[in-house]
Amino acid sequence: MVETFEGVRCPAADLTGFIEDLFTRAGADAPSAKAVTKAVVDASARAFDTHGVRLVPHYIASIEGGRVTGKPRVTFTRKTPSVGHVDGGSGFGHLASYRAIEEGCAMATETGVAAITAGNSSHHGATGCYTAEAARRGFAAIGVTHADAMVVPHGGVKAFYGTNPFSFALPVPGEEPMVLDMATSSIPFNRVFLRRATGTPLPPDVAVTGTGEPTTDANATEAVLPLGGAGFGYKGAGLAAMVDLLSSAFTGMPHGFRLPSFSGPDFATPIPMGHFFLVLRPETFQPAESFYGRVTEFLSDLRNQPTRPGEKAMAPSDPEKPEAADRARRGILVDLTTWDALKEIAGRYRATVPKAS
Amino acid sequence: MVETFEGVRCPAADLTGFIEDLFTRAGADAPSAKAVTKAVVDASARAFDTHGVRLVPHYIASIEGGRVTGKPRVTFTRKTPSVGHVDGGSGFGHLASYRAIEEGCAMATETGVAAITAGNSSHHGATGCYTAEAARRGFAAIGVTHADAMVVPHGGVKAFYGTNPFSFALPVPGEEPMVLDMATSSIPFNRVFLRRATGTPLPPDVAVTGTGEPTTDANATEAVLPLGGAGFGYKGAGLAAMVDLLSSAFTGMPHGFRLPSFSGPDFATPIPMGHFFLVLRPETFQPAESFYGRVTEFLSDLRNQPTRPGEKAMAPSDPEKPEAADRARRGILVDLTTWDALKEIAGRYRATVPKAS
Repeated sequence: MVETFEGVRCPAADLTGFIEDLFTRAGADAPSAKAVTKAVVDASARAFDTHGVRLVPHYIASIEGGRVTGKPRVTFTRKTPSVGHVDGGSGFGHLASYRAIEEGCAMATETGVAAITAGNSSHHGATGCYTAEAARRGFAAIGVTHADAMVVPHGGVKAFYGTNPFSFALPVPGEEPMVLDMATSSIPFNRVFLRRATGTPLPPDVAVTGTGEPTTDANATEAVLPLGGAGFGYKGAGLAAMVDLLSSAFTGMPHGFRLPSFSGPDFATPIPMGHFFLVLRPETFQPAESFYGRVTEFLSDLRNQPTRPGEKAMAPSDPEKPEAADRARRGILVDLTTWDALKEIAGRYRATVPKAS
Repeated sequence: MVETFEGVRCPAADLTGFIEDLFTRAGADAPSAKAVTKAVVDASARAFDTHGVRLVPHYIASIEGGRVTGKPRVTFTRKTPSVGHVDGGSGFGHLASYRAIEEGCAMATETGVAAITAGNSSHHGATGCYTAEAARRGFAAIGVTHADAMVVPHGGVKAFYGTNPFSFALPVPGEEPMVLDMATSSIPFNRVFLRRATGTPLPPDVAVTGTGEPTTDANATEAVLPLGGAGFGYKGAGLAAMVDLLSSAFTGMPHGFRLPSFSGPDFATPIPMGHFFLVLRPETFQPAESFYGRVTEFLSDLRNQPTRPGEKAMAPSDPEKPEAADRARRGILVDLTTWDALKEIAGRYRATVPKAS
């Protein structure tokens, strides 16, 4: 869901150069600086703002505090023709994840499918950045990552699951890839912080107090509910469990509940996160013409469905596409709080701030 | 969710012999009769009653009407070391799906991961039967299938998606596999029929009228909402879209909206359904001890979480396990309507009805 906000606009190329420079000055090597910058700028370009440029100050704090290694030793092990593992060397999760997609695409070119795990990684931003990257290269992909606890089990009173996103992306002829990228909770915890700041209530059936009572009061909220809410949250929780197991048992990392908190205050201890990616080569499954013909037909049928007044039947990532197109024309939108924080970091490192309007 | 009902009890072995006999007499070959029987008895044994023995009369009608071929020519094509396709020959989806899992496990033993599609298939009952079968053989599995339209797009007024289930299963040391098997709508359409019969209202935020208005009146219900309801149904709809594309574009079948209705009245025209399975060999990813240690630790941590009074923190399939254990001891429970229908079919085919109590 696209939320509008006040901000400055900066062309993607200028913003990319600026953020890469900040990471480099803060101690990242070139591959790390490029990977984390590519991911956050891509997320902001696709109007996925919760996981866009606004995370840069947090990531800078992570490298400064030592939680994330700026010059990691990233290794790749190909275990079988179709299974591989990336050890992220406690570096940025974005670097490990793009590497997983790169290797996954190469392997899927040979065998049609590749499962790539990543371990000793860290927060990788929007999981959809990596499935979208695979889709831009002509592959379908599934990607998941666990995270530290913010979501109660169904019927629970205390956070156990991360918001554990699930992503799926697919190339679409003549348009940007279709990218599903969803938390397995109804809302991200960031929405709670935002509503505390704005004093507006949360929607019903998405958040609970410390005793598991449903609440719409952001200040009384201690954790969020799995997708499906009080009635059907066992489904969202089931998806969260799958994401957690794929990201931990398959990668050799602890499950989400045992991870240190992403929000700090400790920015020194690494958070050993795992991710799981699956890359599929469409042409191995069906002739390209048949495959893409069916994708196009599906999207056309869906988008032409009748709706309630003011609504439009949409495929995943359709809601963000008009805003993404606008940002491609007018520059990437960065909220004022984040822009001020970037300028503060630039001041400390004597970096040049690009023109923004 | 386990719903209690009145019924008769029959030991699994007797029930299996009875149902296999009915399918054989109705025109199924031995592999088909065994596959469909195994799936429905397994679903009932696991207390997954919506997709259990109650479907037998429907399947018998499908073979009698010609929608499903009783003696299909099922073929398997291994496209790469890790990708294969089952052509179901318009036979029972259960046969095609068990074949997909069998081949998938063999391939994953070699390469660690296998993606198996099935096409020219038909309704396969509970998708969890196949992922559970893989888990019993020591593999993790994901399985999805599309279905004919019963679920509106987010904001829509007319059914477009099937209930498009998503399943994930995993072997667990010392206990039955963990099986997530969930429709991507909040409720299955069967729940609407049941509530029409019982005159009880539906829960809020799961169903809509023909103009897309939310309703709890089963009689006014024309379609159901994606998981997440009016507020967050774009997530359930996104999952449904993924399931549909995996089951159609990847398998060569039409997408769900273009499939004939499963509910009839036409029982002569085949419904060309597709399914998609992914089989993972845990030991390829991590040493067995590490993998299963993490699975056990995850489940133990989850099940020991504090909850609201009267609740218990559970993993997928935990809610059905006590009832499943009870049925293993006391016999499989078959509701009276279904039992009468089975006796009627047995009468027509001069089959022997087993003792039930």
